[in-house]
Amino acid sequence: MKLFHYDEVELEKAEAGAKDTYVRWLITRKDGAKKFAMRLFELEPSGNSPFHEHDWEHEVFIVEGDGTVTFPNGDEKPLKPWDVVWIPENEKHNFKAGENGLKFICLIPYVKRPLGD
Amino acid sequence: MKLFHYDEVELEKAEAGAKDTYVRWLITRKDGAKKFAMRLFELEPSGNSPFHEHDWEHEVFIVEGDGTVTFPNGDEKPLKPWDVVWIPENEKHNFKAGENGLKFICLIPYVKRPLGD
Repeated sequence: MKLFHYDEVELEKAEAGAKDTYVRWLITRKDGAKKFAMRLFELEPSGNSPFHEHDWEHEVFIVEGDGTVTFPNGDEKPLKPWDVVWIPENEKHNFKAGENGLKFICLIPYVKRPLGD
Repeated sequence: MKLFHYDEVELEKAEAGAKDTYVRWLITRKDGAKKFAMRLFELEPSGNSPFHEHDWEHEVFIVEGDGTVTFPNGDEKPLKPWDVVWIPENEKHNFKAGENGLKFICLIPYVKRPLGD
């Protein structure tokens, strides 16, 4: 078992295509997590992730700040703390910070497909 | 894609063995999540989960309140918001709320084992 505060994990620049966006990989394979990873994204007020899609899903919980999430049809919906976002695989999306910046937990799978129920 | 506030999800009594502990299943198979589920646990100040173990892991992020997590050897460590807890499968653990209650995100896998890297 491991217990630590989020700020003990290095803040890294997020992937190419993201602007003023940083990530902490909180729980990963290095900890022995073999099925899914927990990341904390931190967007500055000017920050956004790319409007993109990929073949893995996101499970998101907004912890601080404000901003928007963009739906596949281009609609932008406002975000506030304790909002939940479920993004299935292959659905286009991005996140944009508002004037207070935006911080959210975002989990991704390590497995390609489930083994069945 | 789905966007909703956490309080739109029903607050249910948690499993037998837990005291004054409630859970919201935020993202589940019903949403199409096939690999892992996101739950929000809400413990009243008098609340605790059972000191137990099982063959699935937990990825936990503390969002509000205070309390403790118990390690397999019985040590109780204090928790505060934005703490992260990684509990591998088959490690004994429980959570106890402090005087402010305790709310945390807890993710569990739907898959029995990974398909490999």
